[in-house]
Amino acid sequence: MARIVECVPNFSEGRRKDVVNAVADAAREVQGVRILDVEMDASHNRAVLTFVGEPEPVQEAAFRVVAKAVELIDLNVHEGEHPRIGAADVVPFIPISEVTLEECVKLAHDLGRRINEELGVPIYFYAEAAMKEERRLLPKIRKGQFEALKEEMGVKAERDPDVGEAKIHPTAGATVVGARGPLIAYNVDLCTDDLDLAKSIAKRIRTSSGGFPAVQAAGFNLEERGMVQVSMNLLNFRETPIPRVFEAIREEAKAAGVPIERSEVVGLIPLDALLDSAEFYLQLHGFDRNQILERRLWE
Amino acid sequence: MARIVECVPNFSEGRRKDVVNAVADAAREVQGVRILDVEMDASHNRAVLTFVGEPEPVQEAAFRVVAKAVELIDLNVHEGEHPRIGAADVVPFIPISEVTLEECVKLAHDLGRRINEELGVPIYFYAEAAMKEERRLLPKIRKGQFEALKEEMGVKAERDPDVGEAKIHPTAGATVVGARGPLIAYNVDLCTDDLDLAKSIAKRIRTSSGGFPAVQAAGFNLEERGMVQVSMNLLNFRETPIPRVFEAIREEAKAAGVPIERSEVVGLIPLDALLDSAEFYLQLHGFDRNQILERRLWE
Repeated sequence: MARIVECVPNFSEGRRKDVVNAVADAAREVQGVRILDVEMDASHNRAVLTFVGEPEPVQEAAFRVVAKAVELIDLNVHEGEHPRIGAADVVPFIPISEVTLEECVKLAHDLGRRINEELGVPIYFYAEAAMKEERRLLPKIRKGQFEALKEEMGVKAERDPDVGEAKIHPTAGATVVGARGPLIAYNVDLCTDDLDLAKSIAKRIRTSSGGFPAVQAAGFNLEERGMVQVSMNLLNFRETPIPRVFEAIREEAKAAGVPIERSEVVGLIPLDALLDSAEFYLQLHGFDRNQILERRLWE
Repeated sequence: MARIVECVPNFSEGRRKDVVNAVADAAREVQGVRILDVEMDASHNRAVLTFVGEPEPVQEAAFRVVAKAVELIDLNVHEGEHPRIGAADVVPFIPISEVTLEECVKLAHDLGRRINEELGVPIYFYAEAAMKEERRLLPKIRKGQFEALKEEMGVKAERDPDVGEAKIHPTAGATVVGARGPLIAYNVDLCTDDLDLAKSIAKRIRTSSGGFPAVQAAGFNLEERGMVQVSMNLLNFRETPIPRVFEAIREEAKAAGVPIERSEVVGLIPLDALLDSAEFYLQLHGFDRNQILERRLWE
């Protein structure tokens, strides 16, 4: 199977379809890149593009979509609910298959330098590509948005970009580039209407309150079904595999006498996350993924 | 993902490499067919070819390899340890992806009729394609081999083929065509040197002694590792999924105070067998395999 990287750039345009199409087309032009999804949100006034392919063409496509966004989007006349600092706002690389997170960090760093050099947009690195610990998360970087950054860049040292002069691009602002693991939206439903139980389990497993690494979790009520849900984002399924959270939730719920009703994956999931789960539960030893019959056909 | 059928024809030639190559080449000629494996066994004097692709080209390739074997192999001068009645001895179709077993039965029936019509070889249908209950298994059909069949066909009514006159092909004998689920060679190792336990568990789970359907099982000693093994062929992983046998073995072993050391898959396994396992253990609900990110790339 090929080496596959995913790129999910976010753009500050969710209303003008021709602009979003032009940005997506810039990726389509690159051979070996496949667009999986183009999402526009008018109230956020934001678009999210998802494309995949081998590392090199994906990196090239990422540069081209950023260039097109810089050309067509003017943040001075942009308004929407979603916080943003750039025409091309956030550009994450995600390892999908036979590519490491470290390789994606390198893709991000190289892309950031090229964007700055060729387009004059200052660059921040976030997530695994962050060069400063406080820039791992987006909210700090985007504080006050384009409008505040315009005033503060070049004035406050903590606003200095990771690449380029401390000088905002007059229309395209600044761009955040990074690398992260694939995000899996994963929910576990409990056979109870006890919302406090879902909330306390979520608290116990999520990173922010001392649980597993790379896990965001919250408890929700599923009123129609008379159940509650532990709703999660698994940010790195290799660091915290699905069975680890599933079994932890099962144990916590069991201690309260509550069984699990079911679990669900929302949206896309990398194949490896499911294969890892099968291997874990079946205690599979010495399994080589080339033993999967269909893999011979994908090659 | 494409519709995929596997075909694993067995030929009565395991010594003359040029003959086996010529047979394999006959499948290679068909566009859309991919050869996964060519195995020759000199003492069995038998070759096993494995190829995959969409149903139509796989069926065409199956016809061509049978035709080539009929042309090149003369059973009157064939000897080997493995029982056989035909130059092309057994031709099973196996559903791999987005194809049903029923469709494979139809492929088998149509192929059988074509072989008889164009090559003059009488046909028996076996496994899921069997037209008579006593022909589901091969040993009955192959009883006494080519030599006995030559004498008895046209004489004893129970030897009448399912397609064609009761008249054996003078050099190519008869061919058995059929459809079956994909076979998974799956072993579970137990943390004990108690061979009797492995044997009694094997007996409890296998079809032939009243266990699960579509399961062959035996107990073995793994002397080097000081363990014992329940060794299985899972003949239909949709009818008896891997987790069902794994959990049954776990329970039986547990009752004897013995934990499972590990399990292993020998050779190829269809992706669905692993995905089914992940879904089972994670109690995944409403999961659509199009949610697997890589699938978008295989299309």
